[in-house]
Amino acid sequence: MSQPKFLSGDKAGIDEFLDRFDVFLFDCDGVLWSGDHMFEKVPETLEMLRSKGKRLVFVTNNSTKSRADYKKKFDKLGIPAEVDEVFGSSYSAAVYIARIINLPAPKNKVFVMGESGIEQELEAEGVPYIGGTDPALRRDIEPEDFTNIANGSLLDPNVGIVLSGLDFHMNYLKSAIGFQYVQRGAQYLATNIDSTLPMAHSFFPGAGASGAALEKAAGKTPLSFGKPSQAMMDAIEGKFKLNRSRTCMIGDRLNTDIQFGIDGKLGGTLAVLTGVSKKEDFLAEGAETVPSAYVNAISDLLG
Amino acid sequence: MSQPKFLSGDKAGIDEFLDRFDVFLFDCDGVLWSGDHMFEKVPETLEMLRSKGKRLVFVTNNSTKSRADYKKKFDKLGIPAEVDEVFGSSYSAAVYIARIINLPAPKNKVFVMGESGIEQELEAEGVPYIGGTDPALRRDIEPEDFTNIANGSLLDPNVGIVLSGLDFHMNYLKSAIGFQYVQRGAQYLATNIDSTLPMAHSFFPGAGASGAALEKAAGKTPLSFGKPSQAMMDAIEGKFKLNRSRTCMIGDRLNTDIQFGIDGKLGGTLAVLTGVSKKEDFLAEGAETVPSAYVNAISDLLG
Repeated sequence: MSQPKFLSGDKAGIDEFLDRFDVFLFDCDGVLWSGDHMFEKVPETLEMLRSKGKRLVFVTNNSTKSRADYKKKFDKLGIPAEVDEVFGSSYSAAVYIARIINLPAPKNKVFVMGESGIEQELEAEGVPYIGGTDPALRRDIEPEDFTNIANGSLLDPNVGIVLSGLDFHMNYLKSAIGFQYVQRGAQYLATNIDSTLPMAHSFFPGAGASGAALEKAAGKTPLSFGKPSQAMMDAIEGKFKLNRSRTCMIGDRLNTDIQFGIDGKLGGTLAVLTGVSKKEDFLAEGAETVPSAYVNAISDLLG
Repeated sequence: MSQPKFLSGDKAGIDEFLDRFDVFLFDCDGVLWSGDHMFEKVPETLEMLRSKGKRLVFVTNNSTKSRADYKKKFDKLGIPAEVDEVFGSSYSAAVYIARIINLPAPKNKVFVMGESGIEQELEAEGVPYIGGTDPALRRDIEPEDFTNIANGSLLDPNVGIVLSGLDFHMNYLKSAIGFQYVQRGAQYLATNIDSTLPMAHSFFPGAGASGAALEKAAGKTPLSFGKPSQAMMDAIEGKFKLNRSRTCMIGDRLNTDIQFGIDGKLGGTLAVLTGVSKKEDFLAEGAETVPSAYVNAISDLLG
C-alpha cells in the first residue's frame, strides 16, 4: 500500500489533489467542528471548494439529528450549507425503509429506539412509527410489564421493523419491547453502530452502545446505515448520482470515514487530524486503513 | 462423544447415577422453578437427595438477588434451603473483589451498575461502593453531565472497579459514567454476562444485555463470574471444598449450566428439560455441549 501524501503546506500537492475530484463527502464532527466548537476557517474552506465547482455532501452518523436539525447546527456555527447537502444515518435508514423494504401497510410500523432525528426522517418519508421519544416508554419496567410484553398486550401487532439509533433515553423497558418484536420476527435495523460518541473532549457511549442491549439479547447484528456501511454509500450514490472515481471522502476516523471511502471504491480519501485518529495510526507498519492523503486541519486545503 | 443417558423412568439408572456423586450443583430457574411457579415435587426431590447424604449447592447467575434474597424465594416457594447453600454471581463477584483483587483503601470503591443484590453482597464483604440503586443516577443525562463526566467532577476519584450486573434501571447516564471510569483505568468486572433472562414464558434482556452499552463502548469483555465462567467454579470449590470428580452439575441450559460442569471437569452433568434447552439440542449430530445424562423433570430423580 502506498504511503498517504501529506498535503499541509504543499500548495501544488493540494491543487493536484483537488483537481482529481468533483464531489467531496465530508464527515462533520472532528473535521468541521468538535461539539459546539467550529475549527478555524471552515466556511472559507468550503467556499473555496464551492468556488471550484465542487459538490459537497455532509455525511453524518449522528442519528439524533434530522437533516433539518443539522442545517440548524450549520447555521448556528455560520457554515453555509443546504438541507439537501446533508446525508445522515437516520435519513439513510428512513429512505431504505420507505423505498427498499417498503412493507405493505398496515404491517409497516417501525418501533423506534432513539431520538427525534429518527422520527423526523421517518415522518418525512411517510413511514408510521411508535416508540422513539414517546414519554410513555421513558419509565422503569414494572413487574406486570414482563407479562404484558411476553403475551403481546403491550405490543403493536403492526410493527414490522425495529430501528435502533443513538438513544440518550435508553432503558430496560424499551430494550425488552424491541427484543420482543425481534423475537416475533420484526426486521432489525440500526441507523449506525458507532461504539463511541466523541463529546466534551472525551468519549461517551455511541449508537452501537446504546443499542447494544437489544443486539446482545437478540444475538445478531442489525443491518446498519452509518459509515462505514456501504448501504449508506449506495444511498448517497443513488441520491447524488456521483461518479465514485471522482469522489473523495474526508474524515477524522480511519475505521469509519476512511474505511467507508475505501470500501466504496472512491477515487480518494483524505484524513484530517483534528479528530479521533492520529497519523501514527495510518503511518504505522501494517496499518489496515490508510487514506490517500492527510492534512493537519481542513483549512490547510486553503493552501 | 458418548450419548447422554436418559434417566426418566429408569430406576436402576438413576440409582447408579446418584451413587457417583457426593455434591449436586443446582441451577434454579428452569430446574426448580420457572419464575414464581415451582415445578412438581421439588421439595421431595431435594429431600431424597439430602437423605442420601448429598450436599446441595444452588448456583445462580441472577445478580439482582443476594443470597439472603434467594433464601426468601426458597422459603416462599416452600423449598427447604440454607443461605450457605446458595451461591450467586453477585456473591461470587463480591468475594473475588474483597479477597482476590483486594485493592488498598481508599482507592477500592466499586461503581455498581446493577440492583440491590450486588450492593448487599459487597456490603457483606465490606467493600465500599457507589452507584447501584442510588436514585440520583436514575435520571436522564443532561447536557452539563457530558462536561462534568468528561472533566471528572461527577466522578469519585476512589473508584477502582466497575461492576456490572443485571440492571432493570440501566440508562445512558450510568453507562457514560461507568465508561468514563473504565477509560480512566478502573478494572471492569461483571457478575455474569447472560444475554437473555427467561421470564413470563419468554425472553428478556439479561445481565450481558443490560451491561452491553458499557461493554460495546469500552470495546472489551469484562471478567465475569456467572456460569459458565470458571471463576465461579473456582470460588465454589474454594468455599465447599468439593471433590470435582464426585460432583454433578444439574441445569437446563447447555451453553451455561452444562458447559459450566464440563469446563469444570466435574464427574458428571445432568440436563433437565423444563427450561431453555431441548433434548434435540444435545442429541443432534455434532452437538457441542452434551450432558452425561438427562431427565424430563427434576422430580424424575425420585424414580
